[in-house]
Amino acid sequence: MITTVSIAKTKKILAEARKKGKRIGFVPTMGALHKGHLSLIRKAKLENDFVAVSIFVNPTQFAPGEDYLRYPRRPAKDKSLLRKENVDLLFVPKTDPMYLVDHSTFVEEFDLSRFLCGKSRPAHFRGICTIVAKLFNIVGADNAYFGQKDYQQAEIIKRMVRDLNFSIKIKVLPIVREKDGLAVSSRNAYLNYREREVASRLYKTLHYIKDAALKGKRDSKKIIKKAKEMLTFPGLTRIDYVKIADAKSLEDVKKIKGKVLIALAVYVGQTRLIDNIVIDVKS
Amino acid sequence: MITTVSIAKTKKILAEARKKGKRIGFVPTMGALHKGHLSLIRKAKLENDFVAVSIFVNPTQFAPGEDYLRYPRRPAKDKSLLRKENVDLLFVPKTDPMYLVDHSTFVEEFDLSRFLCGKSRPAHFRGICTIVAKLFNIVGADNAYFGQKDYQQAEIIKRMVRDLNFSIKIKVLPIVREKDGLAVSSRNAYLNYREREVASRLYKTLHYIKDAALKGKRDSKKIIKKAKEMLTFPGLTRIDYVKIADAKSLEDVKKIKGKVLIALAVYVGQTRLIDNIVIDVKS
Repeated sequence: MITTVSIAKTKKILAEARKKGKRIGFVPTMGALHKGHLSLIRKAKLENDFVAVSIFVNPTQFAPGEDYLRYPRRPAKDKSLLRKENVDLLFVPKTDPMYLVDHSTFVEEFDLSRFLCGKSRPAHFRGICTIVAKLFNIVGADNAYFGQKDYQQAEIIKRMVRDLNFSIKIKVLPIVREKDGLAVSSRNAYLNYREREVASRLYKTLHYIKDAALKGKRDSKKIIKKAKEMLTFPGLTRIDYVKIADAKSLEDVKKIKGKVLIALAVYVGQTRLIDNIVIDVKS
Repeated sequence: MITTVSIAKTKKILAEARKKGKRIGFVPTMGALHKGHLSLIRKAKLENDFVAVSIFVNPTQFAPGEDYLRYPRRPAKDKSLLRKENVDLLFVPKTDPMYLVDHSTFVEEFDLSRFLCGKSRPAHFRGICTIVAKLFNIVGADNAYFGQKDYQQAEIIKRMVRDLNFSIKIKVLPIVREKDGLAVSSRNAYLNYREREVASRLYKTLHYIKDAALKGKRDSKKIIKKAKEMLTFPGLTRIDYVKIADAKSLEDVKKIKGKVLIALAVYVGQTRLIDNIVIDVKS
């Protein structure tokens, strides 16, 4: 595995791989790698001849007061994990060359970004689109891999790729979960023992909504009210949102029908956790 | 010369050219081609193995009430000109597939765009950055060619390319002028005989400022005042701006020193014309 820090060197290595006709898979990450990331990397290894992984904790997607500074950073452990996966290139850029002091260009999506996490984190997806556009331009991959845990992010990136005519295929892989259903996430590392236990309620709540919908309940408002009651529990500090949304437009649905996204964001202690499931409700 | 309308087909042809190791030059235009465009195309032909030209009157860079609808369109004449120049590919996309009904992603530069034309045309450079990013992704060229007449546009595109890590070199070529100094522009076609005569005052005014600065005058405010008096003339309907700005930051300079941009935008009849010169004033 080659590890690069320089943007120019990374471009050069990837240009050479492309010249050799290699199909390139790319997995952008913020590090603190877990089973979810590994599932993306393994899929990328299966579908490509050359796999690049980036680790970059992207400042522009964090608002002031969010967890940019304390976001888990474990470069040595990550590197050894990636080596075991036979990743071809690990790109770990520094922040300063990625965002020069007079950086002034941003990519923003204005439709899907209005909902869900975009409401409580207003500049978040602008930061995501900008860094992903940058990384796509640096790596120049055929395929890029994202996790469904960040469902809205994946939809926004697909929209960006379509709207800006990037030549990259976006592949979204299923959420990887712990035994009790908790979606794996780098932020789970923030949870203490008690919080970790409480966090398993997220998936149970999603499942409650799913079961209700599949059993024929259609009224989102009623189901969400019940779900929020389930989340009212010591240690579950704050509910950001519980939503049943159209899986394509991300807009709230009043009557559940067709492909819907059931998504939630809650604070467990100081930690903001998100999770979702997508279901298809035949009418 | 191959002419393409389809985005996918254009991508495919260019991917094949790249695979053959061809160096690709790209000249994005809005058509109504003139000597300025031809100078870009000839330079592109000299420096590359494969030259692509696009013609697309980009709606997102026009504000409501601007000249989007009446912008000169001369597809047949343009095509025959490009054929004579041995252009390899002409890309003439339709508006609908370029901006799908639910298009929602834009690229915006927030620093250099604040000045000059960005002040009077607030969404203009957002439209420019978005379409240029799209075209760069579709064509995937090594070099792209722009005219210095749109000095601010070229600086913003260079900034965008740097900030978003595009792998394309931006080449900016000198303004081509008519005998009386008027910068060639597709919009000159709007001018009637009388207006055409009046329009030559733009270049004379720039020259007045240049001469004053090179003769040792340093006070921008005084020189600009005099220049605006020169532009107060029947037929010169409105002065949008006359500016002496730092050639890099585009911010106004009070004392002329170093590399400065002398730029103006005025209305001749209904037609908005811009022009500029860059001078280097040794202290």
